[in-house]
Amino acid sequence: LASQAEKPKVYKGLEGIYVTETRLSYIDGLHSKLYYVGYPIEALAKNSTYEEVAFLLYFLRLPRKDELDLFKALMAEARELPEDVLNVVKKMVSLKAHPMDILRTAVSYLAAYDPEVGVNTPESNLRKSLRILSKAPSIIAAMYRFSRNLDYIPPRKDLSHVENFLYMLHDKRPTEFETKVMDTIFILHAEHGMNASAFASLVTISTLSDIYSAVVSGIATLKGPLHGGAAEAAYYQFKEIGSPDKVEEWVQKALASKRRIMGMGHRVYKSYDPRAKIMRELDGEIAKIYGGEPKLLYEIAIKLEEVALREFAEKGRMDIQPNIDYYTPIAYTALGIPPEYFTTIFTASRIVGWTAKAMEYLKDPRLIRPLDLYVGELDKEYVPIDKRG
Amino acid sequence: LASQAEKPKVYKGLEGIYVTETRLSYIDGLHSKLYYVGYPIEALAKNSTYEEVAFLLYFLRLPRKDELDLFKALMAEARELPEDVLNVVKKMVSLKAHPMDILRTAVSYLAAYDPEVGVNTPESNLRKSLRILSKAPSIIAAMYRFSRNLDYIPPRKDLSHVENFLYMLHDKRPTEFETKVMDTIFILHAEHGMNASAFASLVTISTLSDIYSAVVSGIATLKGPLHGGAAEAAYYQFKEIGSPDKVEEWVQKALASKRRIMGMGHRVYKSYDPRAKIMRELDGEIAKIYGGEPKLLYEIAIKLEEVALREFAEKGRMDIQPNIDYYTPIAYTALGIPPEYFTTIFTASRIVGWTAKAMEYLKDPRLIRPLDLYVGELDKEYVPIDKRG
Repeated sequence: LASQAEKPKVYKGLEGIYVTETRLSYIDGLHSKLYYVGYPIEALAKNSTYEEVAFLLYFLRLPRKDELDLFKALMAEARELPEDVLNVVKKMVSLKAHPMDILRTAVSYLAAYDPEVGVNTPESNLRKSLRILSKAPSIIAAMYRFSRNLDYIPPRKDLSHVENFLYMLHDKRPTEFETKVMDTIFILHAEHGMNASAFASLVTISTLSDIYSAVVSGIATLKGPLHGGAAEAAYYQFKEIGSPDKVEEWVQKALASKRRIMGMGHRVYKSYDPRAKIMRELDGEIAKIYGGEPKLLYEIAIKLEEVALREFAEKGRMDIQPNIDYYTPIAYTALGIPPEYFTTIFTASRIVGWTAKAMEYLKDPRLIRPLDLYVGELDKEYVPIDKRG
Repeated sequence: LASQAEKPKVYKGLEGIYVTETRLSYIDGLHSKLYYVGYPIEALAKNSTYEEVAFLLYFLRLPRKDELDLFKALMAEARELPEDVLNVVKKMVSLKAHPMDILRTAVSYLAAYDPEVGVNTPESNLRKSLRILSKAPSIIAAMYRFSRNLDYIPPRKDLSHVENFLYMLHDKRPTEFETKVMDTIFILHAEHGMNASAFASLVTISTLSDIYSAVVSGIATLKGPLHGGAAEAAYYQFKEIGSPDKVEEWVQKALASKRRIMGMGHRVYKSYDPRAKIMRELDGEIAKIYGGEPKLLYEIAIKLEEVALREFAEKGRMDIQPNIDYYTPIAYTALGIPPEYFTTIFTASRIVGWTAKAMEYLKDPRLIRPLDLYVGELDKEYVPIDKRG
């Protein structure tokens, strides 16, 4: 018992442990609030664009018009991909690689083409971040096109970030509403505290590695189904349920078999995820405008939320509520994006959060080097191989 | 003051924080001790091989002869690289990419060729780990050869892991002594507690991402000069000093300008790194056998250690002592490995530690999701762009 008392505490999962200070975002998980640089997420989703939010996260203030114009031009300039990178994307698609594996590899490869590779000043880090941010949608559009045996559509410079992305995906300029939907998705995913992918990225930059490496770690981490994969899982869950009138029975079975409801619950939100609320409202509009599958998915989602929250409330679990991943599949479906690409779009948006955090950390960096607690035997005798039993 | 008292503690760098339990390694940083699975590092360096140490870390026991033979055969089988991966390595070399960027990209790309991609059972994770472990030296040898305009030498199956690596580098089967030196380097770098790269890799696997992603995060993180880059920096430091008789003056200048001595000091070791002691002895043998540059570097290193430790002791800094990176450059030089590849070899060895840790964590995983402390303003008003000052 004495030795047990001396055993150090192990903070598995690091729940509740603060690892750095930030001015980027604040999540009030008890009161359904999220702020980027002090601005409520609702105001940004309503009024802003992804480029403006990116500027906000990089410079900690909203841009003037001339600044935003320059920033957008810089991003638009950087959209093109080297042919060799496109060839690797094509090859990986032909090998049926996971879209996140393709994105991870392509971004890693792009480091070799960066004109400032090896330079690690704050200014070059910002330019590198913008290059990665601008090229990520091109990579995703490329893999989507190749996977459908369609030609790659080169980027256009005269379109906004998300307009160009939708254009590269579908070879068609999107409507104003489609642009608004995609901007909202990109704004809502841009930054979200010290989640696992942001943290992996931070650990990487804490060794004074480089921005590409930090983003690659983020992609590698966001790939995990416990993190970036929830929207895709929520989509398949809605498809499995099939129609709103089957929800009640499905929930009873799910609860009986202790099956998790995908897209509900969050390590930090113990109330309704404010991003989910924004997406739910937008999904309502989408359902009206589009009908068809988006409408069906929306009706299933609304019914499932109602039934699940009622059941959870009865069990005293008021903390399990929809998160953003619950309500994005409906919008993605309306935009013609198949489920295997949901996580890549989350990633394309989140790159701004990872890189903004990396640059913030680099202002006062400290190597992240925790400990693990050894619980095995010590001083074992090395027995020669011919004497081992 | 009240609000300051309420401010949560920020564990920047996570120094002293335990993040998981392990049976893989134990570092006693006060008493110069390191164990792998309970075996003192000295016994392993003296008696073992890299393959045996890899088996030990994966299975938590030393193998019987038949088990080791099978394990070695599995590793030897997996050494080949797909032609497309070799082409990317060649292209990146032609772009003068950083060797760690090439390694990161090649491993990321290899995921698409893994026959068990998408399968995440413990058995497939072990096989994936072995494939990455076996292919990493082939990637390094390829980039080394391409960078010298030399042909890629395909791997041989009849050689041990490090023998084959040296063969692929130099197109010549190494001597028994060269093999012993490389085996020692590989054994000493195999595993080392919860350092930054192992931790990034752990954060990645904690989302239930995959083994390739975990290794890619590790590479991205080990690239940083505060982590994997120390041996290369120590090499250039010895070269800058130039000869043993210049050490005294160089140290005085370094101390006066508060310049760090590369390869000394460690977050965990507050005494002599036991791996550095093993390398120092081996370097003594190397200096005698090889003469030339290895001997010169060795003499500079020995003298620099003597002078620096004397000076640090006078300042009461007994905790700054040589770590492993201080003494590997001499051995690398004897093996004909140029400094820009030092970190890649560290990586090739450390992949076993990352993957063993990832698989250990997956037995009882928990999402690693800490917090960051918001220190900015809240509830800022969104001012339309044409009204911003």
